[in-house]
Amino acid sequence: MAVNLSAPRAADLFPVPGVRIGVAEAGVRKANRKDLSVVLIDEGASVAGVFTQNRFCAAPVQLCRDHLDRVAASGGIRAMVINTGNANAGTGEDGLVRARRTCVALAQKLDIAPEQVLPFSTGVIMEPLPVERIEAGLPAAIADAKPDHWLRAAEGIMTTDTIAKAFSRRVTIGGVQVTVTGISKGAGMIRPNMATMLGFMATDATVDAGVMKQLALELAEGSFNRATVDGDTSTNDSFVVIATNKAKHGAITSLDSENGKALKSAMLEVARLLAQAIVRDGEGATKFITVRVEGGKTAAECRLVAYAIAHSPLVKTAFFASDPNLGRILAAVGYAGIADLDQTRIELHLDDVHVATGGGRNPSYREEDGQRVMKQSEITVRVGLGRGKAEDTVWTCDFSHDYVSINADYRS
Amino acid sequence: MAVNLSAPRAADLFPVPGVRIGVAEAGVRKANRKDLSVVLIDEGASVAGVFTQNRFCAAPVQLCRDHLDRVAASGGIRAMVINTGNANAGTGEDGLVRARRTCVALAQKLDIAPEQVLPFSTGVIMEPLPVERIEAGLPAAIADAKPDHWLRAAEGIMTTDTIAKAFSRRVTIGGVQVTVTGISKGAGMIRPNMATMLGFMATDATVDAGVMKQLALELAEGSFNRATVDGDTSTNDSFVVIATNKAKHGAITSLDSENGKALKSAMLEVARLLAQAIVRDGEGATKFITVRVEGGKTAAECRLVAYAIAHSPLVKTAFFASDPNLGRILAAVGYAGIADLDQTRIELHLDDVHVATGGGRNPSYREEDGQRVMKQSEITVRVGLGRGKAEDTVWTCDFSHDYVSINADYRS
Repeated sequence: MAVNLSAPRAADLFPVPGVRIGVAEAGVRKANRKDLSVVLIDEGASVAGVFTQNRFCAAPVQLCRDHLDRVAASGGIRAMVINTGNANAGTGEDGLVRARRTCVALAQKLDIAPEQVLPFSTGVIMEPLPVERIEAGLPAAIADAKPDHWLRAAEGIMTTDTIAKAFSRRVTIGGVQVTVTGISKGAGMIRPNMATMLGFMATDATVDAGVMKQLALELAEGSFNRATVDGDTSTNDSFVVIATNKAKHGAITSLDSENGKALKSAMLEVARLLAQAIVRDGEGATKFITVRVEGGKTAAECRLVAYAIAHSPLVKTAFFASDPNLGRILAAVGYAGIADLDQTRIELHLDDVHVATGGGRNPSYREEDGQRVMKQSEITVRVGLGRGKAEDTVWTCDFSHDYVSINADYRS
Repeated sequence: MAVNLSAPRAADLFPVPGVRIGVAEAGVRKANRKDLSVVLIDEGASVAGVFTQNRFCAAPVQLCRDHLDRVAASGGIRAMVINTGNANAGTGEDGLVRARRTCVALAQKLDIAPEQVLPFSTGVIMEPLPVERIEAGLPAAIADAKPDHWLRAAEGIMTTDTIAKAFSRRVTIGGVQVTVTGISKGAGMIRPNMATMLGFMATDATVDAGVMKQLALELAEGSFNRATVDGDTSTNDSFVVIATNKAKHGAITSLDSENGKALKSAMLEVARLLAQAIVRDGEGATKFITVRVEGGKTAAECRLVAYAIAHSPLVKTAFFASDPNLGRILAAVGYAGIADLDQTRIELHLDDVHVATGGGRNPSYREEDGQRVMKQSEITVRVGLGRGKAEDTVWTCDFSHDYVSINADYRS
């Protein structure tokens, strides 16, 4: 059961002019599952992506990077192909060959170059991609392609997710209404480092190709890179942003312009909802926890502390148990890696409850107040470091029996 | 159930001349538990310790550091007082006052200076130490003190441990037989960083005070600093080494001398057994896993990779399930933090089974071979980085339902 997250409704997901989506059952790993999606993009779009920092990155990630590097020469990205059931990671040279074959197959059917296709895979690592099944499924996926199929795609990229993740916003840019729609999937192996497991966003806004990469980076940094479920950075993290350039406003050439800010703000809202949805639907999650660290010398050290708290199995199991065993949070602050941290300046709040002050228990703190907050399904942990003015935030979930069950049974 | 670890027998634990141990039930947190231990050390011993690198270190750790700094002026360490049930961490200035009171109380009863006492606490964080109960329990603990009470002490320092941890060895130094005996406790919040939760070792060997610190550091580095259960570095990690200097051989003034090497080898064997025992009895552990990383440029980068594997919840749950979902190990290698890692050079063995080669699945690898090894209670993961000649090893356990149960219920 995802935490305060309901299934998206097709009616709430606005089509993005210039993008069509089709989904099929290709039997990649199991039969009768929507496991193959194609995203077809009209000519003239600007596309950028950010990808996992895992050095063991999957074959499709390597191809995506390569194709995006050559995007200007190739005539632009025109399609994406996404399979679940197999991550095509840890598969060596053979994995690259198979990923290329899926691009070639889709390109032939669309009469474009293979370099105009971005491939994505998610699922089990170190098993050969059944490329024949993907090739065989492509015609059905292409035939299914429609502008209003965002919900189908959100469902088509799910693995251990229990709920599809998709959000839309509309915003006025230069007097013209534009749409932003995005989807994501997550659940486990989630500690995005520059991107998430899989996230796709599209807008019909007109964005200069020169600022697309920066836009994608800033969106990832403010959303997916603030989410963690289990601290495992995936081999396949990919986040792609598409601007179809269909809207008739002046092209956005700077994110600091008025139009740039308006678009980024709308896109960031969708990106944050998608990233938070991944945490809400984290494997076994029963609580959504915002870890906010303030008073640091730099945002980086605040993030270090926030991740130490968010990854501590002891903190996460205490949240699962609704047990205000809050010393575990202080312990995580202490081992986060700030060498000259002064423990006598640490403050800890749980929502409105002031738990610790000056590094020790707040004299007026009462266990029943901590207990009250711990029972909530949404909790904010606020740590003050007392060293400066920087701050940062990370979202995470608790650690439950179901996480162990899901991951002990994942392949069976 | 600890993994291949049986309870020590009193007859196998050799007394160390110059050390007496007494245990009592002080009711620190719960009644009818051996929760207070004293270690009484004859005059003239050399003592050194290593302590947690957690910046949020507990009050007793702060006092231990201070007392050991002043050991020469104070006349030497003569006693230790150890309580379970309360960690006296995250307790601010008041915690320091309470820790000092336990030292003063024991010192008065033994007619020594408070600075000659080392205090240790383990248990729940951020609750006030019930110092009156400890004071009230001291006479019984002192009255109980005997040289052959090592097993009682090993039991007296247990918290969520399911089994006591104690080992002895004898070794001949300069023609004289000397004894090494040690005890430890662990179970959860175990990722020692310079020491473990609590570990104490004593020998009657004669060791110059000038090399004691180095001896303690080298022992910790080769044992407790290679063990991890959940990656949480405790606020209270303490490891203390005592040489009572009773044995009539020439004093050891260098660890590189013949006698120094012989003593260190025997002490390291005991320290490793104690550290491995903590992992074997890790909360919820069903398997003991040795992670060996070879072919690194430095031992530090090998350790980085070994800890990434040892801390990955996905890897640990796969071991729990005996599921050879070994791509999760490759993913952890990839995100460990080696920026210029070349994935095409990675080798992976599971015991004798060659799982991955050149960064991809080994063509001759068969799932049933991986399955066979995964079912064992002791498994060695061996990763080759193909970058150099350095190597390092870390011991860990799997991640089970019981870990969640134990830590969700710990305070109740």
